[in-house]
This record gives sequence, structure tokens and C-alpha cells, in this order.
Amino acid sequence: MATGAHRTASTREKLERAHRAAPRLSQFSTLQKNQTLLAMANAIESQADRILAANQNDLESSSLPEAMRDRLLLTLPRVSAIAAGIREVVALPDPIGEVIAEWRRPNGLLIRKVRVPLGVVGIIYESRPNVTADTVALTLKTGNAIVLRGGREAAHSNQCLVEILNAVPGLPEGAIELLDSATRDSVQELIRARDLVDVIIPRGGAGLINFVVENSVVPVIETGAGNCHIFVDESADFDMADRIVINAKTQRPSVCNAAEKLLIHQSIAETYLPRIAKKLVAQGVELRGDAAAVRVSPQILPATTDDWSEEYLRLCLAVCVVANLDEAIDHINRYSTRNSEAIVSASEANARRFLRAVDSAAVYWNASTRFTDGGEFGFGAEMGISTQKLHCRGPFALAELTSSKYEVVGSGQIRT
Amino acid sequence: MATGAHRTASTREKLERAHRAAPRLSQFSTLQKNQTLLAMANAIESQADRILAANQNDLESSSLPEAMRDRLLLTLPRVSAIAAGIREVVALPDPIGEVIAEWRRPNGLLIRKVRVPLGVVGIIYESRPNVTADTVALTLKTGNAIVLRGGREAAHSNQCLVEILNAVPGLPEGAIELLDSATRDSVQELIRARDLVDVIIPRGGAGLINFVVENSVVPVIETGAGNCHIFVDESADFDMADRIVINAKTQRPSVCNAAEKLLIHQSIAETYLPRIAKKLVAQGVELRGDAAAVRVSPQILPATTDDWSEEYLRLCLAVCVVANLDEAIDHINRYSTRNSEAIVSASEANARRFLRAVDSAAVYWNASTRFTDGGEFGFGAEMGISTQKLHCRGPFALAELTSSKYEVVGSGQIRT
Repeated sequence: MATGAHRTASTREKLERAHRAAPRLSQFSTLQKNQTLLAMANAIESQADRILAANQNDLESSSLPEAMRDRLLLTLPRVSAIAAGIREVVALPDPIGEVIAEWRRPNGLLIRKVRVPLGVVGIIYESRPNVTADTVALTLKTGNAIVLRGGREAAHSNQCLVEILNAVPGLPEGAIELLDSATRDSVQELIRARDLVDVIIPRGGAGLINFVVENSVVPVIETGAGNCHIFVDESADFDMADRIVINAKTQRPSVCNAAEKLLIHQSIAETYLPRIAKKLVAQGVELRGDAAAVRVSPQILPATTDDWSEEYLRLCLAVCVVANLDEAIDHINRYSTRNSEAIVSASEANARRFLRAVDSAAVYWNASTRFTDGGEFGFGAEMGISTQKLHCRGPFALAELTSSKYEVVGSGQIRT
Repeated sequence: MATGAHRTASTREKLERAHRAAPRLSQFSTLQKNQTLLAMANAIESQADRILAANQNDLESSSLPEAMRDRLLLTLPRVSAIAAGIREVVALPDPIGEVIAEWRRPNGLLIRKVRVPLGVVGIIYESRPNVTADTVALTLKTGNAIVLRGGREAAHSNQCLVEILNAVPGLPEGAIELLDSATRDSVQELIRARDLVDVIIPRGGAGLINFVVENSVVPVIETGAGNCHIFVDESADFDMADRIVINAKTQRPSVCNAAEKLLIHQSIAETYLPRIAKKLVAQGVELRGDAAAVRVSPQILPATTDDWSEEYLRLCLAVCVVANLDEAIDHINRYSTRNSEAIVSASEANARRFLRAVDSAAVYWNASTRFTDGGEFGFGAEMGISTQKLHCRGPFALAELTSSKYEVVGSGQIRT
């Protein structure tokens, strides 16, 4: 494919450019990085018209369902929000160069563990164009080169944003590379390029994430799945339980930290279950349940075994009556996707046991699962929510886009 | 295959047992873990005869080259060293339960980042049976279940060691699982079991490591490769450079932190190169070099382009004359496997630039690359040397066998 006199670079050529840019970006000072980010924020605001026109082109070329259309849509306030997001990253501390630990060995060697960039970060994501600018800001702040593979439906918006970001003075060629979104070929090549790319972060639906996890030879940070549970213990304050269950299920049902399952201690099933069922149904929630739940509440339809594993991502909730805390913990560790789980209980002993024994990224005592989020945790930003245990777990942002290196200073030491 | 009245468990069944054991092991107290480890050390010493007999069986059933035979061989002192190694792990601090960070949000939520086990750790390794006990000690101390897949030539030794370790009172079934080593089927199944295994650590030759990296869907910590470089700068003290180069190349040439390449600043090529070449040849080192190196020293044979990437793991060294520091850095970042690299220089400015710009796990100024080792770094143990950037980089031991979890304590908070 030719664009004017230039042949478009192949995926491999783009990855090689990013690989060459990485060592240069790793040497950028904090001031250099912040000035670059501010220039990017200004460029986005001053070229808002161009961005909106490209976005209009995307909106006209695809026939998306309304919800996805809204995720793709950019408006002037949304473009300003993108610029504001970049400026927020400027204000965050730069983790690169931090001395994580330093010690001297008996032989006189001085060992220093220093925080360094990962190198080349690959992001595979779906429709929202704001992700393009957000991730560029986070990866640039941490001295990484970035390779973006956005969704096909946002191709014009992403192309326009990347052109504007790349045009900022001082960036080395390859700092921001955008891969072709027309076919999956570019994804295939990206996730096989272990010699050029240091990490892949897939952001999107279960299909995308599973494809990347199954096929990548580049290390992956798995994000996103969330079959989240709330256990209402026998000592729970019912009003508090109502608030937490309703919030976790209904405040934003399409996100990964929304509750999908409700476990109830059998000793309160008859008193609490009809009450919360009524309130949930009033909020438009479809309820499914095990035999004990169905027996207690006529508003609950029978669940199948598949329900316990399913992430609905909509106003649907499955309810299970459990004999005790241990059964609740076992059920969660069996079916959850290890994202976020909560216990509502007045018993500190039970809560402590739940927090320790439930094997998930974030475990809550008397709070909504919806708080699993970089912003809500106070990180000032978020790259995603890791549901694996390697490298990072739970919401992650700047620090998790770094690696470390040992710098060792001697005076001629040799090993004997 | 039937053993007595019992059918041997399949790989999948063993992985499921380990998966069930993991949550139980994660709740072990430090005291429980240390008592278990001490019992293991005692059991190994008191059953040394049985271990030596099993090892004899391995030695008799295979015809290995002498070097590999020596790695497989157990003796009474070596069995005692295995027990002593386990006792050393008892003395190390337990990282599990450590509060890595704790803070309160404006809404009153208390967030605590706590160190937790990874879960199920899979180790794939080659002939040395001491690795069996070493890795069991490190993974048990960190509350993980372990799945071992050792080399076929050590099958009897490993089976005997695992039976002894597993017989220690108090361990849940599945804490230590040994997979069949007769075929690669068990490796295939282990590295595909993302639902049951949290990390795979391959320890061995390049063939094994590449196979695991290429085929695993379970996250991997890549270890081992080491095409290590030493750059002798124009200001280097020649005596110091001699000591470091000779030590890094000859002290133990078969290991991953041994030097494989020597880069020399062109301004000292004529004075330093013939001198170090003579000393290296006297130590039995075969020398290869680029045109400039060959011109200066008759003891150097021409290198091919493949030489710059090759990890010899024997008494062979390739020499390259470089124009300056930048050329040395570029050469290293292009060809190295990102393990260990050193600069010998009297210039602090050059050394600082080298330490920052060379993208390897450990970078040295005026010291031998051979120090890249958990013991030499003061970790008291070592699981391997990570040559990837995700999760951990360089020598790693107990802390890197852990993950983290967010425990969040509220009083009914919901997200608005």
C-alpha cells in the first residue's frame, strides 16, 4: 500500500523502529518527558477540529450498536478531557531512576537496584480513542517506546491522534508506532516479536485477552476479566449490605469490577434474601439462584452450573446460599476470575479470614468491589487491572510499566 | 502404569492436587514452614543411603558424558550439602504477609498491599538432583505449591528425594508433585495449564528455555542465557583488566555469567590486546576477533558474524575493537542476551554512561561479570537469573516467588 510517495512501513519495520527508539527514550530526563507531554496536551487541544473530523470519518464508516458508538464518539469536551488526562500524568512522580535498594557486600562491591523502563510496550485495545492518548502518556512518562494496535472502527481517530502526538518536537522516530488495524496479522506479528517487544498489555473483551494469552510469546500482563463476588455474612448490617450489593451490581454493570455473584450465609437467607431480591429487581436486575435461593425468593429463577463462572457484564446477578464462611471462600476460589471480592460482615475474625484466604487481586471488607481502579486507589492513573500474579496484580499504572537493573560498582573484584 | 495396587496419577491430576494444596500452604505460618523445612533436612540426612542407592540406579541406567555424569552424581558430602542448603533457607526471613504499602483514601477506605504466595510454581530443569531439594525449600518457604519436572537421567534420584520430602508430617497432599520425565508430554501439559499453574521457571540449556518460552501459556520467568561482554576502555588499568577478563572468562566457563566477548577501545588495541591475548591463550582460551583484532594479535583467528551472538560456554572468547564508548554500548545492546556486562575504566563519566545505557540485568564497573548470582548478591539463595524484564530481572530468590494482593477495609463505602 502506498501513501503518496511513501510505502507504509510493515509491522516488523515499525517494531524495529520502536526497538531502536527505546534506549533513547530510556535516557530522557524527567523534565524532557514532562515538556514533551505538555506539548502533546497542547497539540491535542489546538488540533481538536482535525481530531473530531477524523472521528466523524470513523463514525460514518461503521454501523455500531449505540453503546459502542458512544465509546467511539469524540466531542470537544472529550478531546479536552484527553488533554487534561495527559497533564495529570505530568504531575505524577517519575519512577525512572529511583534507587529501589542499595547495599555493599563484604568484598566491597556496591550493588544498586535501579528502576528502569521496560523498553517496548505493546498495547492491543478496542474502540475508545482516549486509550490511545492515555497509554502514550503513561508509557512515555516511564521512558518506554509504545506500539499501539487499536480497533479497526477507531482507525482514523487513532491515526490522527498518533500523528499529532508524534509531531511533538524531540521525540525519536519509533517512540509511538501505530499498527494496521484492518486485519489480525499485525496482532499476530506483535505478539510473536519477543526479540523486539518487552511486554504486551491486552485491553478489551475476553475474546481479545484469551487470544493474546494463548498465542503470545512476548510476556503478557493479563487484564480485565471479573466474575466478582459479594458474601453477606450472618452478622452483616443489612442496610450496609443493601448499599454495597446494589452499588457493586448496578452502578456500572459493564465493567470488570462490577459484582456478578451474591453469596448469602444460610442463617440469614430467609430474612435477607427476599429483601435484597426485591430491591435488585426494582433496579432492573435479573436474578438467578441455586435451589435454596429459589426456595426463599419467588423473584429468583433457577441458575445453571454455567452461571457460577459467567461474567454477565449486565444487570444480572446469580445468588447462592452457603452454609458458612468456609463454603463461601471455597466457592469464590473455585469460580472467581481473581479480580475483586467482598465480604459484608460485623465479625472482624471472619473478615480477616476472608481477606487472607480469598485468592483475588483485591479483597474488600464492608466496601463495594467497584473501587478496584487506579484512580480510586489513588494512583492518579490506570493502565489496567491485572488478574495474573506475575509482575503486578490488581490496578496498575506507572510503577508497573518499569523494570529494574542491578548496577554494580567495584574496584577490580573477581570471583574466587 | 500401575505401581503396586495404585495407578500412577496423570499429569493433570497432579496439577489439580497442587492447585488444591496451594491455598492451604498459603496459610502456613512462618513457624510451620520452618519446622517443615528442618524436618526435611533431617529426613534427607537420615535417609542418605536410600538417596545414594537411587542415584546409583540413575548413574547405571544412563551413559552420560563425564561432565554431565558429575552433575548427576550424589555423594555423602553432597547429600549433606543438600540438607545444609535447606537449613540455610530456614534462616532467611519469610517474605509472606509483609505489608508492602498501606494508605488511607479520602473516603476512609484503608488499602493495604500485602505480599502473598504465587500459588503453584512449575520448575522444569535438567540433571542436577540438588535442584530438586533447593527449589522445594524456596517454594515452600514462600507458601507455594511446587510442580517439578526434572530430567529423565535423574528420575530415580528425584523420585526418592520427593518421596522423602513429601513424607514429612503436616504437608498437604499436592504440596510437592513430581511429573513423569520419560517423555515431553508432561512438559507440554504443565506449560498449557494456565488454570492450575501460576508461573513456570525453566532452568537449563537454551533448547529447554526456548521451548518453554515458545510454547507456554502460563507466565514464564525466562532464565539463563548469557552472552556477556567486557569493555576495556582507553583509561583502564591494564592489570585490573587482566584480572577481570581472565576471571570472567576462565573461572567457570560453562555458566551463564561467564564472559563471552571482549570489546577494546581502539586507542589501546595495540598496547593491551597482544598482552591480554597472550595471557588468555596461556590459560587455554581460543580467541576469535574482528579484522582489527586479528591485525594486532597473531593469536586471534577471524570471527564470523555468528560469533557476536554466540554463547560459547567454554574456553573461547571473541574480541572486537571499537572506536569509542558509544560503539561499545551499541554493540552490547545489539548482541547481548541482557544478562551481565562490564566496563573496565578509570573514567567515572564513562562508567556512569555505560551503567545507564547498557540494557542488561546486571551491569558492572571494574568487577567481574561472574558476580551475577543470588549468593554473591547476598540473597542467601538463588532460584535463577532472570533475563526478561517482567516480574524480576537478574538473580532472584524468595521475594520473587511471591505476588501481592490488595486488602481493602471499609465501613460501607460505595462508589458514586
